[in-house]
Amino acid sequence: MKLFDKRTGMEVMDDRDCLALVGEEVIGRIAVIAGGRPEVFPVNYAVAGDSVVFRTATGTKLDAAVNGPVAFEVDRFDPATRSGWSVVIHGRAEVVDGLSHPDLRQTLEALPVDPWAAGNKEHLIRIVPASITGRRVG
Amino acid sequence: MKLFDKRTGMEVMDDRDCLALVGEEVIGRIAVIAGGRPEVFPVNYAVAGDSVVFRTATGTKLDAAVNGPVAFEVDRFDPATRSGWSVVIHGRAEVVDGLSHPDLRQTLEALPVDPWAAGNKEHLIRIVPASITGRRVG
Repeated sequence: MKLFDKRTGMEVMDDRDCLALVGEEVIGRIAVIAGGRPEVFPVNYAVAGDSVVFRTATGTKLDAAVNGPVAFEVDRFDPATRSGWSVVIHGRAEVVDGLSHPDLRQTLEALPVDPWAAGNKEHLIRIVPASITGRRVG
Repeated sequence: MKLFDKRTGMEVMDDRDCLALVGEEVIGRIAVIAGGRPEVFPVNYAVAGDSVVFRTATGTKLDAAVNGPVAFEVDRFDPATRSGWSVVIHGRAEVVDGLSHPDLRQTLEALPVDPWAAGNKEHLIRIVPASITGRRVG
């Protein structure tokens, strides 16, 4: 059964549909609070179960992500047909290292999440969802 | 002259290049702080001078945007070539109404920012940039 938002007319997607769409894309945007203001960073990511995984270097993105709530957004829109969808995952981010998560680290290491930018992105980050919302338009 | 980030190898774009790229797209993502956590909303927008303009209805997006700092992100990535760019505009958002900004309102009303979703999006919002950062990869 399809659900629609009365106010906007947009279709509201369930968690399963949201995760399926997120699994089809490779670039998402992580939003964090850093220095009291919102920051947005595009990352290339992979999906493992209901978690989103990406790599990052030490820096603002990592510090803010592991020390506060995060939102992770993925979308696809087609201007020609004015249609598309977006999914936002709210949750927390954690560093997956070999000590705290030896088996998980090994599994996630095998995912295709090598960043496009150069530099040593040694940290594997997992977003653990608390809620998932998705909307489809057009 | 091109500038590069030593750590990531990514090209750092100047404000003019950033705004030119933002002007070529139609969908961006506004990040705000709402209820102590980051929120991300895709919007279709237009550029007027160095401001980004979009429409929204009364609600979380509007309340958070006009009551705190915002980040506005636009990007374009090509998975096939692992290349692309992203621009993030930090600043504040303001409602452009006919009383406080009669001339500006008239100008902005003419921009192609009718939202794709249904519903009465009566508020015209302008993001006034405090800083613009852009990176290009690949």
